[in-house]
Amino acid sequence: MTLSTPGRHLDALQQRTPLVHCITNFVAMNSSANILLAVGASPAMLHAREEVSEFVPLAGALSINIGTVSPDFAEAMLDATRAAHQTATPWVLDPVAVGATRYRQRLCAELLEHAPSLIRGNASEILCLNGIANPGRGVDSTASPDQARDAAVELARRQNCLVGVSGEVDLITDGERIVHISGGHALMPRITTLGCGLSATAAAFLAVADDSPSGRLTATTAAFGCFSLAGERAGAQAAGPGSFTAPFLDALYQLTPHDLDTHLVMETRNAL
Amino acid sequence: MTLSTPGRHLDALQQRTPLVHCITNFVAMNSSANILLAVGASPAMLHAREEVSEFVPLAGALSINIGTVSPDFAEAMLDATRAAHQTATPWVLDPVAVGATRYRQRLCAELLEHAPSLIRGNASEILCLNGIANPGRGVDSTASPDQARDAAVELARRQNCLVGVSGEVDLITDGERIVHISGGHALMPRITTLGCGLSATAAAFLAVADDSPSGRLTATTAAFGCFSLAGERAGAQAAGPGSFTAPFLDALYQLTPHDLDTHLVMETRNAL
Amino acid sequence: MTLSTPGRHLDALQQRTPLVHCITNFVAMNSSANILLAVGASPAMLHAREEVSEFVPLAGALSINIGTVSPDFAEAMLDATRAAHQTATPWVLDPVAVGATRYRQRLCAELLEHAPSLIRGNASEILCLNGIANPGRGVDSTASPDQARDAAVELARRQNCLVGVSGEVDLITDGERIVHISGGHALMPRITTLGCGLSATAAAFLAVADDSPSGRLTATTAAFGCFSLAGERAGAQAAGPGSFTAPFLDALYQLTPHDLDTHLVMETRNAL
Repeated sequence: MTLSTPGRHLDALQQRTPLVHCITNFVAMNSSANILLAVGASPAMLHAREEVSEFVPLAGALSINIGTVSPDFAEAMLDATRAAHQTATPWVLDPVAVGATRYRQRLCAELLEHAPSLIRGNASEILCLNGIANPGRGVDSTASPDQARDAAVELARRQNCLVGVSGEVDLITDGERIVHISGGHALMPRITTLGCGLSATAAAFLAVADDSPSGRLTATTAAFGCFSLAGERAGAQAAGPGSFTAPFLDALYQLTPHDLDTHLVMETRNAL
Repeated sequence: MTLSTPGRHLDALQQRTPLVHCITNFVAMNSSANILLAVGASPAMLHAREEVSEFVPLAGALSINIGTVSPDFAEAMLDATRAAHQTATPWVLDPVAVGATRYRQRLCAELLEHAPSLIRGNASEILCLNGIANPGRGVDSTASPDQARDAAVELARRQNCLVGVSGEVDLITDGERIVHISGGHALMPRITTLGCGLSATAAAFLAVADDSPSGRLTATTAAFGCFSLAGERAGAQAAGPGSFTAPFLDALYQLTPHDLDTHLVMETRNAL
Repeated sequence: MTLSTPGRHLDALQQRTPLVHCITNFVAMNSSANILLAVGASPAMLHAREEVSEFVPLAGALSINIGTVSPDFAEAMLDATRAAHQTATPWVLDPVAVGATRYRQRLCAELLEHAPSLIRGNASEILCLNGIANPGRGVDSTASPDQARDAAVELARRQNCLVGVSGEVDLITDGERIVHISGGHALMPRITTLGCGLSATAAAFLAVADDSPSGRLTATTAAFGCFSLAGERAGAQAAGPGSFTAPFLDALYQLTPHDLDTHLVMETRNAL
């Protein structure tokens, strides 16, 4: 059996323009919508409890980001993820700053009960979340790469989902295999909400993931790969964070399946 | 009697910098504010029920967009549109995704009672809204241009307002006459909230519309014409959606009344 | 004793990347986050009452902006500023459009009780706020530069804080001394929320202000100076408001302490 490639997933995304329902933070809403449009998806930002459960089944995937959460958004997130779980709609959890307050930790604990397909965060967020899913592990926000890898694998197994860790070298795991992705650009941490946009983009790819054994792992890898490659190209043209954004969106828009397959040498390793 | 031109309306807008009160969605707030500033208006984004009724009479026009609506915003929209109706302040309704959920349909039915001056949407939104205003018509989201035209004319007559339908060729009608506007650029659907910004811009033009029989029709045409012309100019410089936005705002800022009158050959046709 | 310079404060900011907690308006959230990242700070946008009091002590400074305030945000602002006052965390008040509605005036009166470190606004906002702090003074929105200066000095003394007034020539006072800053660019009022971003940037500088007698005055001057200098540089490259933003962020990112000290001839005058 031949596993499909990241490029084939990009082709599917561009052909099918999946509808991605985002309940995200106020800082990221505009930027994530533009990122989704650039990559070829169709964004829908809505969060009223009066309608999210009705809308989720219309969408190809759901992206949840707790960045500026408040009680009304939290309720909508729980309703939406419950609906996603019931309708087998793939959904992504972006646990922004989960380590910062108890409020975020309680909310993430509840969201984890609705079976996210992918959890994407930075190393300290993944460590914190793993501490929540595995009480007693504690939270360490000054993680080494090794600690982040171990936490990601453990969290993926415990939750039976994918985990993506953004960093200088990204890491994606399904609990059995690990994919590393390098690339991107040093300016990227100086532009707000790129990580949020990556979570939304991963949701778009999960909406078109194929049924192969590693379909979702490859789809997630494709999303990270698009950001890595578009980031490289934009960074090469940018004089600073201000002049990064336009070429980044242009690069996402111009990416081809061939670009992606050439860029991504998927080094899959066994997790243990 | 000489009807005034779209260009004369742009001149009035640039001279008078009308204050435009926007209650809009979170994705569009920043982009609509920058669009209004670029074209020469003064944006005011506020939505607390505690103050909207007090603020509406200070504004030259009101723009309502239901994109990310929730109950508190819905209440503020109803208060604000009631105040606009009572004080004869022109107001624009942008019924984003009204076909998607019953919540949006109920809200739009209530908003229509407060007599919008202009309803602006895409073809499927206008068809859905016409179905709400004329129960029994049903909702068809895969509309042909002919269906959208008929629905726009019917909705304009039923509501005694203007209706603007965005598409490859835009259509504006007061129920008697129809104006078609072409131009723009194929990249525009790949940038989020441009339609929301057009609704806000139309509100700015309605704030300075003259008293001629077709003052409001011409004002709305001017708004659509600005977007069509600025879109053409920006598209000619853009390598993708990322590099479209800056020249689009620059073009809006640089437009002259003469540009607009030269660009717009107002082909007004009788609606029947 | 040698007073430290604005440049030394920029150096401290770039070295220490202070965490700035922003409770700001929806229009400004993305733009303020990108401005803070460009200048070298670390933005945190969060506003749930369930967590702000827990978060404030983690931050180096707090920035409060009432632009799109609603009751839930107002409560969070009061909780956060109370926590800032109790923990001696510097905080900035940006009283957007305080003159427009009574709701804003009541909220600002409450916020003033929590001892802001800096109030930054335009001339009419400062005049209005001084009228609130000194009842009986009245509100005049068509202020002359002299009236704005007198109100700023009076407000600074009454509140025992710094006051910054943005305009063609900016004015900063601690009630005893006055600093004037010129520069910037005529396009700046045509881009939304730059003032909001300046308030957030001032908070970042206050987070690293040194203990000299004029530490906070110099820190605030550094923030205004960064905007003045970056605005000049961006304006020289821009064809309109659209093409201003990217070089503005790039310029903020590229500023050096030496640039700032060379640009700012701090003409400190006695306030009376």
